[in-house]
Amino acid sequence: MREDVRVGNRTRPRSGLLVVAAAVLGMALASRAATDDLVPYPDGYRQWTHVSSSYVGPQNAGYQGNGGLHHIYANKEAAEGYRTGRFPAGSVIVADFLEPRESDGVVTDGPRRRLDVMLKDGKSASGGWRFEQFKGDSRAERLVTPEVADRCFACHKRRQEQDFVFSSLRQ
Amino acid sequence: MREDVRVGNRTRPRSGLLVVAAAVLGMALASRAATDDLVPYPDGYRQWTHVSSSYVGPQNAGYQGNGGLHHIYANKEAAEGYRTGRFPAGSVIVADFLEPRESDGVVTDGPRRRLDVMLKDGKSASGGWRFEQFKGDSRAERLVTPEVADRCFACHKRRQEQDFVFSSLRQ
Repeated sequence: MREDVRVGNRTRPRSGLLVVAAAVLGMALASRAATDDLVPYPDGYRQWTHVSSSYVGPQNAGYQGNGGLHHIYANKEAAEGYRTGRFPAGSVIVADFLEPRESDGVVTDGPRRRLDVMLKDGKSASGGWRFEQFKGDSRAERLVTPEVADRCFACHKRRQEQDFVFSSLRQ
Repeated sequence: MREDVRVGNRTRPRSGLLVVAAAVLGMALASRAATDDLVPYPDGYRQWTHVSSSYVGPQNAGYQGNGGLHHIYANKEAAEGYRTGRFPAGSVIVADFLEPRESDGVVTDGPRRRLDVMLKDGKSASGGWRFEQFKGDSRAERLVTPEVADRCFACHKRRQEQDFVFSSLRQ
């Protein structure tokens, strides 16, 4: 037996209502994910404090995927964290990975490989940090699945004494 | 014949007065140099906008003196200059030269070689720019003689169309 239910001034079958409810729930979840769950793209990070840079050269085993210049930036909260050793909630650290361009023995920045982001929410089980990666220049194409995030933290947790941060502020 | 002259309520030989006058003139010149003529040490440049970095590797002919990571920073006025192509008076650009430290094919920053500074005063014959270099971590040991400044500009004037600036703001 089909039960009809009244929605507004229209009568819909109950199964239809479930579809509507599921759609609304899905939209709500998607909206929550967009606003709460996802680490936001770090707008304006190129104006943040430059923490340090390094160059991964051909002698490194990870050259194929990581070779080139890397630049690390800290927002205001994270810059305080580098100074005090404890990163307050809201700290964001960005690692900018660029392909190498070499001319006459001088390496400069090529196209962006990816942008790695650490956000301190102070709540996440992974030391209070959340991890994200944006592919190339994309602000939307995300590379971190839950499994990747686990791997991020598996490495970062070695630095618990530095609040799980590897880099230090170059003087 | 020695002429004596009166200075305050003491009588000094004229030659002594000349020594005093020369000393006073010298102090005045030193004071003027310290406040007007010298490009100031760029306090707080590590918090300025990070323009770009590069790595000078062993294949470069200048590796012995310049090998390592170089980081360029711009104060607020110079950051505007990078965006507009015209650097307003007060623009300061810093190039931070670090010796390389290599481990497992990854190069990081070693001790500072020197800090190069360009200051736009809008008046100097060298395109409105003045040039300075500070040795290592010193805020006082300056490397730029007038001859060195001429060499700085001899190279920078090739970039007149970019207001004599070689670097560009990495996106």
